Amino acid sequence: MKIAFLLYRGFTALDIVGPFDVLSRLPGADAVFVAKQVGPYGNDNDRLSIVARSSLQEVARPDVVVVPGGTAGTREAAEDGEILAWLRQAHETTTWTTSVCTGSLVLAGAGLLTGLEATTHWAAQGELQRRGAIYRSERWVQQGKIVTAAGVSAGIDMALFLAGQIAGDTAAQSIQLGLEYDPSPPYHSGSPAKASEDVLAAVGSVFR
Amino acid sequence: MKIAFLLYRGFTALDIVGPFDVLSRLPGADAVFVAKQVGPYGNDNDRLSIVARSSLQEVARPDVVVVPGGTAGTREAAEDGEILAWLRQAHETTTWTTSVCTGSLVLAGAGLLTGLEATTHWAAQGELQRRGAIYRSERWVQQGKIVTAAGVSAGIDMALFLAGQIAGDTAAQSIQLGLEYDPSPPYHSGSPAKASEDVLAAVGSVFR
Repeated sequence: MKIAFLLYRGFTALDIVGPFDVLSRLPGADAVFVAKQVGPYGNDNDRLSIVARSSLQEVARPDVVVVPGGTAGTREAAEDGEILAWLRQAHETTTWTTSVCTGSLVLAGAGLLTGLEATTHWAAQGELQRRGAIYRSERWVQQGKIVTAAGVSAGIDMALFLAGQIAGDTAAQSIQLGLEYDPSPPYHSGSPAKASEDVLAAVGSVFR
Repeated sequence: MKIAFLLYRGFTALDIVGPFDVLSRLPGADAVFVAKQVGPYGNDNDRLSIVARSSLQEVARPDVVVVPGGTAGTREAAEDGEILAWLRQAHETTTWTTSVCTGSLVLAGAGLLTGLEATTHWAAQGELQRRGAIYRSERWVQQGKIVTAAGVSAGIDMALFLAGQIAGDTAAQSIQLGLEYDPSPPYHSGSPAKASEDVLAAVGSVFR
Protein backbone atom coordinates (compact mmCIF):
# COMPACT_ATOMS: atom_id res chain seq x y z
CA MET A 1 0.00 0.00 0.00
CA LYS A 2 1.78 3.06 -1.34
CA ILE A 3 0.89 6.19 0.65
CA ALA A 4 2.03 9.42 -0.98
CA PHE A 5 2.47 12.49 1.23
CA LEU A 6 2.59 15.54 -1.04
CA LEU A 7 5.13 18.27 -0.35
CA TYR A 8 5.33 21.74 -1.87
CA ARG A 9 7.04 24.91 -0.69
CA GLY A 10 5.09 26.39 2.23
CA PHE A 11 3.23 23.34 3.58
CA THR A 12 2.27 23.25 7.28
CA ALA A 13 4.41 20.62 8.97
CA LEU A 14 1.88 19.19 11.42
CA ASP A 15 -0.72 18.86 8.62
CA ILE A 16 1.42 16.18 7.02
CA VAL A 17 3.39 14.70 9.92
CA GLY A 18 0.28 13.95 12.00
CA PRO A 19 -1.23 11.66 9.31
CA PHE A 20 2.24 10.32 8.46
CA ASP A 21 2.88 9.11 11.99
CA VAL A 22 -0.49 7.34 11.99
CA LEU A 23 -0.65 5.90 8.47
CA SER A 24 3.02 4.94 8.02
CA ARG A 25 2.57 2.47 10.91
CA LEU A 26 -0.19 0.49 9.22
CA PRO A 27 0.74 -3.08 8.32
CA GLY A 28 2.04 -3.13 4.75
CA ALA A 29 2.28 0.65 4.47
CA ASP A 30 4.90 2.04 2.10
CA ALA A 31 4.93 5.73 3.00
CA VAL A 32 6.73 8.18 0.73
CA PHE A 33 7.08 11.95 0.64
CA VAL A 34 6.68 13.16 -2.94
CA ALA A 35 7.04 16.52 -4.66
CA LYS A 36 7.64 17.96 -8.10
CA GLN A 37 11.34 17.39 -7.56
CA VAL A 38 13.32 15.25 -5.16
CA GLY A 39 14.91 17.29 -2.36
CA PRO A 40 14.10 19.36 0.74
CA TYR A 41 10.94 21.50 0.96
CA GLY A 42 10.57 24.31 3.50
CA ASN A 43 7.41 24.68 5.59
CA ASP A 44 5.10 27.70 5.92
CA ASN A 45 7.49 29.70 8.13
CA ASP A 46 10.56 28.20 6.43
CA ARG A 47 12.09 26.97 9.67
CA LEU A 48 11.73 23.27 8.88
CA SER A 49 12.51 21.21 5.79
CA ILE A 50 11.22 17.74 4.97
CA VAL A 51 12.86 15.83 2.17
CA ALA A 52 10.84 14.61 -0.81
CA ARG A 53 12.45 11.27 -1.58
CA SER A 54 10.52 10.67 -4.81
CA SER A 55 9.20 12.82 -7.60
CA LEU A 56 5.54 12.92 -8.61
CA GLN A 57 6.46 11.03 -11.79
CA GLU A 58 8.03 8.22 -9.77
CA VAL A 59 4.85 7.72 -7.74
CA ALA A 60 2.16 7.97 -10.38
CA ARG A 61 -0.27 5.43 -8.91
CA PRO A 62 -0.32 5.68 -5.10
CA ASP A 63 -3.03 3.88 -3.16
CA VAL A 64 -3.49 6.75 -0.71
CA VAL A 65 -2.74 10.45 -1.20
CA VAL A 66 -2.44 12.99 1.63
CA VAL A 67 -2.34 16.69 0.71
CA PRO A 68 -1.34 19.14 3.48
CA GLY A 69 -2.38 22.77 3.74
CA GLY A 70 -0.37 25.89 4.41
CA THR A 71 -0.49 29.58 3.67
CA ALA A 72 0.66 31.29 0.43
CA GLY A 73 2.37 28.14 -0.87
CA THR A 74 -0.90 26.25 -0.78
CA ARG A 75 -2.60 28.78 -3.03
CA GLU A 76 0.32 28.39 -5.47
CA ALA A 77 0.01 24.61 -5.30
CA ALA A 78 -3.73 24.92 -5.95
CA GLU A 79 -2.89 26.51 -9.32
CA ASP A 80 0.17 24.44 -10.21
CA GLY A 81 -0.59 22.51 -13.38
CA GLU A 82 1.89 19.74 -12.68
CA ILE A 83 0.61 19.09 -9.15
CA LEU A 84 -3.03 19.26 -10.26
CA ALA A 85 -2.46 16.89 -13.20
CA TRP A 86 -0.70 14.43 -10.88
CA LEU A 87 -3.57 14.60 -8.38
CA ARG A 88 -6.21 14.04 -11.02
CA GLN A 89 -4.32 11.07 -12.46
CA ALA A 90 -3.51 9.54 -9.06
CA HIS A 91 -7.13 9.95 -7.97
CA GLU A 92 -8.28 7.67 -10.79
CA THR A 93 -6.75 4.66 -9.05
CA THR A 94 -6.43 5.63 -5.36
CA THR A 95 -8.42 3.92 -2.67
CA TRP A 96 -8.31 7.12 -0.60
CA THR A 97 -7.64 10.72 -1.67
CA THR A 98 -7.31 12.99 1.34
CA SER A 99 -6.39 16.47 2.50
CA VAL A 100 -5.70 18.27 5.76
CA CYS A 101 -6.47 21.93 6.47
CA THR A 102 -6.23 24.10 3.34
CA GLY A 103 -4.95 21.08 1.44
CA SER A 104 -8.60 20.81 0.37
CA LEU A 105 -8.05 23.95 -1.74
CA VAL A 106 -5.53 21.94 -3.77
CA LEU A 107 -7.98 19.07 -4.22
CA ALA A 108 -10.57 21.65 -5.27
CA GLY A 109 -8.06 23.17 -7.69
CA ALA A 110 -7.78 19.74 -9.31
CA GLY A 111 -11.55 19.72 -9.70
CA LEU A 112 -12.00 16.82 -7.30
CA LEU A 113 -14.36 18.56 -4.86
CA THR A 114 -16.83 20.20 -7.24
CA GLY A 115 -20.31 19.82 -5.78
CA LEU A 116 -19.04 17.66 -2.91
CA GLU A 117 -19.15 18.28 0.82
CA ALA A 118 -15.71 18.99 2.27
CA THR A 119 -13.94 20.75 5.08
CA THR A 120 -10.83 22.90 5.55
CA HIS A 121 -9.25 25.24 8.09
CA TRP A 122 -12.06 27.26 9.68
CA ALA A 123 -10.61 30.52 8.33
CA ALA A 124 -10.63 29.22 4.73
CA GLN A 125 -14.25 28.13 4.46
CA GLY A 126 -15.23 30.94 2.06
CA GLU A 127 -12.25 30.18 -0.13
CA LEU A 128 -13.23 26.50 -0.29
CA GLN A 129 -16.80 27.35 -1.24
CA ARG A 130 -15.60 29.70 -3.99
CA ARG A 131 -13.65 26.77 -5.40
CA GLY A 132 -16.81 24.73 -5.83
CA ALA A 133 -17.09 22.59 -2.69
CA ILE A 134 -19.85 22.63 -0.09
CA TYR A 135 -18.18 23.55 3.22
CA ARG A 136 -18.99 21.53 6.31
CA SER A 137 -17.75 22.42 9.78
CA GLU A 138 -16.68 18.93 10.83
CA ARG A 139 -13.42 17.43 12.08
CA TRP A 140 -13.31 15.46 8.85
CA VAL A 141 -15.73 14.85 5.97
CA GLN A 142 -15.96 11.69 3.88
CA GLN A 143 -17.44 11.65 0.38
CA GLY A 144 -16.82 8.26 -1.16
CA LYS A 145 -13.07 7.80 -1.26
CA ILE A 146 -12.33 11.48 -0.66
CA VAL A 147 -11.74 12.54 2.93
CA THR A 148 -10.97 16.13 3.91
CA ALA A 149 -9.90 17.19 7.41
CA ALA A 150 -10.27 20.52 9.19
CA GLY A 151 -7.30 22.63 10.30
CA VAL A 152 -3.82 21.23 11.02
CA SER A 153 -4.27 18.92 14.03
CA ALA A 154 -7.52 17.51 12.60
CA GLY A 155 -5.30 15.45 10.31
CA ILE A 156 -4.49 13.17 13.24
CA ASP A 157 -8.16 12.46 13.89
CA MET A 158 -8.83 11.89 10.19
CA ALA A 159 -5.84 9.57 9.87
CA LEU A 160 -7.07 7.41 12.75
CA PHE A 161 -10.44 7.18 11.01
CA LEU A 162 -8.68 6.15 7.79
CA ALA A 163 -6.50 3.65 9.67
CA GLY A 164 -9.67 2.01 10.96
CA GLN A 165 -11.19 1.91 7.47
CA ILE A 166 -8.02 0.42 6.00
CA ALA A 167 -6.87 -2.00 8.68
CA GLY A 168 -9.71 -2.29 11.18
CA ASP A 169 -10.48 -0.85 14.59
CA THR A 170 -7.88 -2.80 16.56
CA ALA A 171 -5.03 -1.67 14.31
CA ALA A 172 -6.20 1.96 14.48
CA GLN A 173 -6.59 1.81 18.25
CA SER A 174 -3.12 0.27 18.60
CA ILE A 175 -1.66 3.16 16.66
CA GLN A 176 -3.55 5.59 18.88
CA LEU A 177 -2.12 3.87 21.95
CA GLY A 178 1.38 3.84 20.46
CA LEU A 179 1.13 7.58 19.82
CA GLU A 180 -0.38 8.04 23.29
CA TYR A 181 -3.03 10.14 21.62
CA ASP A 182 -5.12 10.88 24.68
CA PRO A 183 -5.35 14.64 24.21
CA SER A 184 -5.44 16.92 27.21
CA PRO A 185 -4.83 20.46 25.99
CA PRO A 186 -4.26 23.06 28.72
CA TYR A 187 -6.66 25.44 26.97
CA HIS A 188 -9.96 25.03 25.14
CA SER A 189 -9.61 27.46 22.27
CA GLY A 190 -9.28 25.06 19.37
CA SER A 191 -12.31 26.22 17.42
CA PRO A 192 -13.84 29.63 16.69
CA ALA A 193 -16.94 28.60 18.67
CA LYS A 194 -14.86 27.95 21.80
CA ALA A 195 -12.31 30.77 21.56
CA SER A 196 -12.84 34.14 23.25
CA GLU A 197 -13.14 37.42 21.34
CA ASP A 198 -9.61 38.33 22.45
CA VAL A 199 -8.21 35.12 21.03
CA LEU A 200 -10.14 35.46 17.77
CA ALA A 201 -8.75 38.96 17.42
CA ALA A 202 -5.18 37.86 18.21
CA VAL A 203 -4.98 34.82 15.95
CA GLY A 204 -4.29 36.92 12.87
CA SER A 205 -1.16 38.37 14.43
CA VAL A 206 0.21 34.96 15.43
CA PHE A 207 -0.49 33.32 12.07
CA ARG A 208 1.04 35.72 9.65
CA MET B 1 14.32 33.47 21.59
CA LYS B 2 16.31 30.66 20.05
CA ILE B 3 14.41 27.36 20.19
CA ALA B 4 16.54 24.31 19.36
CA PHE B 5 14.77 21.17 18.14
CA LEU B 6 17.21 18.27 18.47
CA LEU B 7 17.44 15.71 15.68
CA TYR B 8 19.23 12.36 15.70
CA ARG B 9 18.80 9.29 13.55
CA GLY B 10 15.58 7.48 14.56
CA PHE B 11 13.55 10.29 16.16
CA THR B 12 9.74 10.09 16.06
CA ALA B 13 8.48 12.78 13.71
CA LEU B 14 5.33 13.86 15.56
CA ASP B 15 7.31 14.16 18.83
CA ILE B 16 9.21 17.09 17.38
CA VAL B 17 6.83 18.54 14.79
CA GLY B 18 3.96 18.92 17.28
CA PRO B 19 5.95 21.24 19.57
CA PHE B 20 7.59 22.88 16.54
CA ASP B 21 4.28 23.94 15.04
CA VAL B 22 3.25 25.44 18.38
CA LEU B 23 6.47 27.07 19.57
CA SER B 24 7.80 28.33 16.23
CA ARG B 25 4.73 30.58 16.00
CA LEU B 26 5.45 32.43 19.24
CA PRO B 27 6.28 36.11 18.81
CA GLY B 28 10.06 36.48 18.54
CA ALA B 29 10.68 32.75 18.15
CA ASP B 30 13.78 31.71 16.20
CA ALA B 31 13.20 27.98 15.72
CA VAL B 32 16.05 25.83 14.45
CA PHE B 33 16.52 22.10 13.91
CA VAL B 34 19.94 21.06 15.20
CA ALA B 35 21.96 17.85 15.13
CA LYS B 36 25.53 16.68 15.39
CA GLN B 37 25.96 17.50 11.73
CA VAL B 38 24.01 19.64 9.30
CA GLY B 39 21.91 17.56 6.89
CA PRO B 40 18.88 15.26 6.71
CA TYR B 41 17.99 12.87 9.55
CA GLY B 42 15.68 9.90 9.07
CA ASN B 43 12.84 9.18 11.51
CA ASP B 44 12.16 5.96 13.46
CA ASN B 45 10.81 4.04 10.46
CA ASP B 46 13.15 5.86 8.05
CA ARG B 47 10.36 7.00 5.77
CA LEU B 48 10.72 10.71 6.56
CA SER B 49 13.75 13.00 6.76
CA ILE B 50 13.92 16.39 8.43
CA VAL B 51 16.91 18.60 7.72
CA ALA B 52 19.13 19.83 10.54
CA ARG B 53 20.04 23.33 9.40
CA SER B 54 22.57 23.96 12.16
CA SER B 55 25.08 21.87 14.06
CA LEU B 56 25.07 21.57 17.85
CA GLN B 57 28.23 23.69 17.94
CA GLU B 58 26.50 26.49 16.05
CA VAL B 59 23.64 26.64 18.57
CA ALA B 60 25.49 26.33 21.86
CA ARG B 61 23.22 28.57 23.94
CA PRO B 62 19.57 28.09 22.94
CA ASP B 63 16.85 29.56 25.13
CA VAL B 64 14.61 26.54 24.73
CA VAL B 65 15.55 22.94 23.94
CA VAL B 66 13.11 20.28 22.72
CA VAL B 67 14.31 16.66 22.66
CA PRO B 68 12.11 14.13 20.81
CA GLY B 69 11.86 10.41 21.52
CA GLY B 70 12.01 7.43 19.23
CA THR B 71 12.95 3.79 19.33
CA ALA B 72 16.49 2.36 19.01
CA GLY B 73 17.97 5.67 17.89
CA THR B 74 16.85 7.31 21.12
CA ARG B 75 18.78 4.80 23.22
CA GLU B 76 21.85 5.55 21.11
CA ALA B 77 21.32 9.29 21.56
CA ALA B 78 20.98 8.73 25.32
CA GLU B 79 24.55 7.41 25.33
CA ASP B 80 26.06 9.75 22.76
CA GLY B 81 28.77 11.81 24.45
CA GLU B 82 28.54 14.71 22.05
CA ILE B 83 24.76 15.06 22.37
CA LEU B 84 24.85 14.69 26.14
CA ALA B 85 27.64 17.25 26.55
CA TRP B 86 25.70 19.69 24.36
CA LEU B 87 22.54 19.16 26.43
CA ARG B 88 24.36 19.67 29.72
CA GLN B 89 26.00 22.86 28.48
CA ALA B 90 22.85 24.22 26.86
CA HIS B 91 20.85 23.48 30.00
CA GLU B 92 23.08 25.83 32.01
CA THR B 93 21.58 28.84 30.25
CA THR B 94 18.20 27.69 28.89
CA THR B 95 14.95 29.08 30.17
CA TRP B 96 13.23 25.78 29.33
CA THR B 97 14.71 22.32 28.75
CA THR B 98 12.09 19.92 27.49
CA SER B 99 11.48 16.45 26.09
CA VAL B 100 8.68 14.52 24.43
CA CYS B 101 8.08 10.78 24.75
CA THR B 102 11.31 8.82 25.27
CA GLY B 103 13.27 12.04 24.72
CA SER B 104 13.28 12.08 28.53
CA LEU B 105 15.70 9.12 28.38
CA VAL B 106 18.16 11.43 26.63
CA LEU B 107 17.71 14.13 29.28
CA ALA B 108 18.24 11.42 31.91
CA GLY B 109 21.34 10.25 30.05
CA ALA B 110 22.72 13.76 30.42
CA GLY B 111 22.06 13.52 34.16
CA LEU B 112 19.42 16.23 34.09
CA LEU B 113 16.59 14.19 35.60
CA THR B 114 18.34 12.49 38.53
CA GLY B 115 16.00 12.53 41.49
CA LEU B 116 13.41 14.59 39.63
CA GLU B 117 9.84 13.74 38.69
CA ALA B 118 9.42 13.23 34.97
CA THR B 119 7.33 11.44 32.38
CA THR B 120 7.87 9.54 29.15
CA HIS B 121 6.03 7.18 26.80
CA TRP B 122 3.92 4.84 28.95
CA ALA B 123 5.84 1.78 27.73
CA ALA B 124 9.20 3.30 28.80
CA GLN B 125 8.41 4.12 32.41
CA GLY B 126 10.66 1.38 33.84
CA GLU B 127 13.50 2.51 31.62
CA LEU B 128 13.13 6.09 32.81
CA GLN B 129 13.15 5.03 36.45
CA ARG B 130 16.29 2.95 35.92
CA ARG B 131 17.94 6.10 34.59
CA GLY B 132 17.35 7.91 37.86
CA ALA B 133 14.10 9.83 37.41
CA ILE B 134 10.86 9.41 39.36
CA TYR B 135 8.20 8.44 36.80
CA ARG B 136 4.86 10.21 36.87
CA SER B 137 1.92 9.21 34.69
CA GLU B 138 0.93 12.71 33.58
CA ARG B 139 0.48 14.38 30.20
CA TRP B 140 3.47 16.57 31.08
CA VAL B 141 5.53 17.14 34.22
CA GLN B 142 7.24 20.39 35.20
CA GLN B 143 10.19 20.50 37.57
CA GLY B 144 11.58 24.01 37.59
CA LYS B 145 12.65 24.77 34.05
CA ILE B 146 12.56 21.14 32.96
CA VAL B 147 9.34 19.92 31.35
CA THR B 148 8.89 16.35 30.13
CA ALA B 149 5.90 15.18 28.09
CA ALA B 150 4.35 11.72 27.76
CA GLY B 151 4.24 9.78 24.47
CA VAL B 152 4.36 11.42 21.03
CA SER B 153 1.17 13.50 20.77
CA ALA B 154 1.57 14.74 24.37
CA GLY B 155 4.19 17.10 22.98
CA ILE B 156 1.43 19.26 21.54
CA ASP B 157 -0.24 19.64 24.93
CA MET B 158 3.10 20.38 26.61
CA ALA B 159 4.03 22.92 23.97
CA LEU B 160 0.76 24.82 24.50
CA PHE B 161 1.51 24.89 28.22
CA LEU B 162 4.99 26.24 27.45
CA ALA B 163 3.59 28.77 25.00
CA GLY B 164 1.39 30.10 27.80
CA GLN B 165 4.32 30.29 30.20
CA ILE B 166 6.47 32.10 27.64
CA ALA B 167 4.00 34.44 25.96
CA GLY B 168 0.81 34.37 28.03
CA ASP B 169 -2.55 32.68 27.76
CA THR B 170 -3.89 34.70 24.82
CA ALA B 171 -0.88 33.91 22.63
CA ALA B 172 -1.08 30.21 23.51
CA GLN B 173 -4.81 30.11 22.86
CA SER B 174 -4.34 31.90 19.53
CA ILE B 175 -1.88 29.24 18.47
CA GLN B 176 -4.32 26.53 19.54
CA LEU B 177 -7.02 28.18 17.43
CA GLY B 178 -4.65 28.57 14.48
CA LEU B 179 -3.82 24.87 14.68
CA GLU B 180 -7.52 24.09 15.14
CA TYR B 181 -6.45 21.88 18.03
CA ASP B 182 -9.89 20.82 19.17
CA PRO B 183 -9.22 17.09 19.30
CA SER B 184 -11.96 14.64 18.44
CA PRO B 185 -10.35 11.22 17.97
CA PRO B 186 -12.62 8.53 16.53
CA TYR B 187 -11.39 6.07 19.19
CA HIS B 188 -10.55 6.33 22.87
CA SER B 189 -7.51 4.10 23.17
CA GLY B 190 -4.83 6.69 23.77
CA SER B 191 -3.66 5.42 27.15
CA PRO B 192 -3.13 1.96 28.62
CA ALA B 193 -5.93 2.62 31.12
CA LYS B 194 -8.41 3.25 28.32
CA ALA B 195 -7.30 0.64 25.77
CA SER B 196 -8.79 -2.85 25.60
CA GLU B 197 -6.79 -6.02 26.22
CA ASP B 198 -6.83 -6.73 22.47
CA VAL B 199 -5.35 -3.34 21.70
CA LEU B 200 -2.71 -3.63 24.42
CA ALA B 201 -1.72 -6.99 22.98
CA ALA B 202 -1.62 -5.66 19.41
CA VAL B 203 0.37 -2.48 20.02
CA GLY B 204 3.68 -4.32 20.08
CA SER B 205 3.14 -5.63 16.58
CA VAL B 206 2.30 -2.21 15.17
CA PHE B 207 5.20 -0.41 16.88
CA ARG B 208 8.14 -2.59 15.97
